[in-house]
Amino acid sequence: MKYPNGNRIKYKTNTTYDNRGMNLEKDINLSNQYYIDNNIAFIYKKPTPIQITKVDYPSRNKAVIKEAFFKVPSTTDYNGLYKGKYIDFEAKETINTNRFPLNNIHSHQIQHIKNIVDNGGISFIIVRFTTLDKTFLLPANIFLNFLNNNTRKSIPLEYFERNGFILENKYIPRIDYIKIVDFLCKEDNHGE
Amino acid sequence: MKYPNGNRIKYKTNTTYDNRGMNLEKDINLSNQYYIDNNIAFIYKKPTPIQITKVDYPSRNKAVIKEAFFKVPSTTDYNGLYKGKYIDFEAKETINTNRFPLNNIHSHQIQHIKNIVDNGGISFIIVRFTTLDKTFLLPANIFLNFLNNNTRKSIPLEYFERNGFILENKYIPRIDYIKIVDFLCKEDNHGE
Repeated sequence: MKYPNGNRIKYKTNTTYDNRGMNLEKDINLSNQYYIDNNIAFIYKKPTPIQITKVDYPSRNKAVIKEAFFKVPSTTDYNGLYKGKYIDFEAKETINTNRFPLNNIHSHQIQHIKNIVDNGGISFIIVRFTTLDKTFLLPANIFLNFLNNNTRKSIPLEYFERNGFILENKYIPRIDYIKIVDFLCKEDNHGE
Repeated sequence: MKYPNGNRIKYKTNTTYDNRGMNLEKDINLSNQYYIDNNIAFIYKKPTPIQITKVDYPSRNKAVIKEAFFKVPSTTDYNGLYKGKYIDFEAKETINTNRFPLNNIHSHQIQHIKNIVDNGGISFIIVRFTTLDKTFLLPANIFLNFLNNNTRKSIPLEYFERNGFILENKYIPRIDYIKIVDFLCKEDNHGE
């Protein structure tokens, strides 16, 4: 009886579910807000997909969801627009120090990344090795290339070091991934 | 005791919250699935944004959301990729027979549509007058033009009839809005 039930559960939520990938997500969201505020790019995190099964209406205009379940996402978490280009990516953290386990990314999401690349969009993954405090941007074609040529269940750190772009932690914007996107867009135009 | 609790509440949900704008949303989702399956376009509805305040973990890998609230969306509902172009739109139904009330679209969403147009994306609204069974696609520039030149709180039906594109109900895809998008993309390229 020491803790009111609501608060206690809220606390539990923060320390378990919400914390997964929290810091990278926060850094990307802050960076996206900077890009929006400065009219640079319009990239947003998609809301978490859920299946709502119970809704209460305590008053006329107020709806409270009383039961819902997390759904497996069919696309990546982030998408938007940069200089007329469609941008689409997934961001993940790992505590591993030498590899990124591929079970972090669903097969639906990999198919989605393929579709984006095949249809002229710019796609990539951002992976942070939290223990090392290193963040990489790996372009979609390099990511897909690894999947096509390996049966391994994880991508070694050195593959990121050799083929990815390192994203430095900065103050504003927190991680300036648009710089790399700009480079990828130019490369993409060049290849047309 | 006749109905298991879950089923009964699920039924209630379907008839209240989920039914708002259900048919147009369903038609667009079916059309989007057709476009995805046929490798034509990759456009998805964004999940409904919610604020989760309580989560239970009845077992190790199972999370159940026990309390959450609907949030006001900061962007439009649909976005994606068509032939390298960024596509972004909002879809709304109205039961009015002669006007579309503008309070259906939040000011955040209007700003978002402006940002998309200014940054080389293709944007529009799809509005269905359910009573008349007429569905229109109104390009963003024509929509924004109305807002800039009017203080009215609704767009008259005749503005849609004069300036919009009518979307016929078909069998497959349900509403073939990509045809119009294709025209808008060409118009957009022409203007470059």
